[in-house]
Amino acid sequence: MRIAELSRQSGVPVPTIKYYLREGLLPAGELTSPNQASYGETHLRRLRLIRALIDLGQVPVARVKDILEGLDSDDLPLHDQIGRAHRAITPTRPASANTEARTAAAVQVGDLITRRGWQVEPDAPALTTLIETVAALRTLDQDHLADYLDAYADAVEKFTALEVASVTTRTDPDQIAESVVIGTILGETLIAALRLLAQESISAHSWPRD
Amino acid sequence: MRIAELSRQSGVPVPTIKYYLREGLLPAGELTSPNQASYGETHLRRLRLIRALIDLGQVPVARVKDILEGLDSDDLPLHDQIGRAHRAITPTRPASANTEARTAAAVQVGDLITRRGWQVEPDAPALTTLIETVAALRTLDQDHLADYLDAYADAVEKFTALEVASVTTRTDPDQIAESVVIGTILGETLIAALRLLAQESISAHSWPRD
Repeated sequence: MRIAELSRQSGVPVPTIKYYLREGLLPAGELTSPNQASYGETHLRRLRLIRALIDLGQVPVARVKDILEGLDSDDLPLHDQIGRAHRAITPTRPASANTEARTAAAVQVGDLITRRGWQVEPDAPALTTLIETVAALRTLDQDHLADYLDAYADAVEKFTALEVASVTTRTDPDQIAESVVIGTILGETLIAALRLLAQESISAHSWPRD
Repeated sequence: MRIAELSRQSGVPVPTIKYYLREGLLPAGELTSPNQASYGETHLRRLRLIRALIDLGQVPVARVKDILEGLDSDDLPLHDQIGRAHRAITPTRPASANTEARTAAAVQVGDLITRRGWQVEPDAPALTTLIETVAALRTLDQDHLADYLDAYADAVEKFTALEVASVTTRTDPDQIAESVVIGTILGETLIAALRLLAQESISAHSWPRD
């Protein structure tokens, strides 16, 4: 199909598609004449993935590129592809000012990981984020939330087990990697939206408007 | 304390503090001379909240301002303050291109909300996000994740109940509102980080590096 049809089917404007082509997010079409290219199902699928990551996952364009390069590099072991996708979606957090709170948080998080037998790289960005967040909760007098770390981890292990089980039914490594990336990023959006709705509902019951 | 001391205690550089003062995120200090102001514990506390929302919650500055204005407007009922904080942290999602997938997703989400007896405003931004995300998962051939909506909702209801129970032990309305805002935003960061760590761990077990 031509670029106009690709735009119609994906709902993405032509100038945006051209931008993704220039940035290397979308592979070039097949040239059918010196200034005309043809696009196929692969392009449509990739375009939908890009839009979902940007619009729903709120992943910046530069990080989308990193993620797609990970998916496209067949020589990477799957575990490393997953790691790459994780790193691409985990923002680097600045160090917190309060070193005392940070040290206490690092001990609490370290204990949690040991107790659960989680196998985690010591330089995983999510580890820094978790420690900084626990430290911030304590500094902001929200100790109760930091104290619930185990309860949160229990609930999170439930979805993660489901997510991994759903991925292991697939056999094509490319499909597995794509499924893990989409599941990681859109799964987060899904969970966050459900949580806001559940909170809105409970708060409507707890503090009704007069 | 003077601004230099406020900067030292909060770890926020003086120019950044001045920017927050200009933008109205931080209330003005008490003038001790025509060009010198004094700041107190309230400023330090507010500054830590601003940084946590921006650095860990990744909330844009303009939205932080909305959230703080909600916290500072004492005449708003608590439920409306919570709604305001929710709206400030929920990005507006563009409509998906595939109307068929969107309609099916809206039915699935509507059924879920009815079945669970959730009391949700029909224009809640999180509702749009949830519908768009389910539609995107189906369009991207990740039906299994969309099918787990109930399992995700089960897990999410568990944290939400804990979060609400922890808030209702407080009696000061200002503290309740602040606690809800921090819990909503930093809780999301905490859950997302735990989920990435659990995924990394399970993927290390499932697909070990050779």
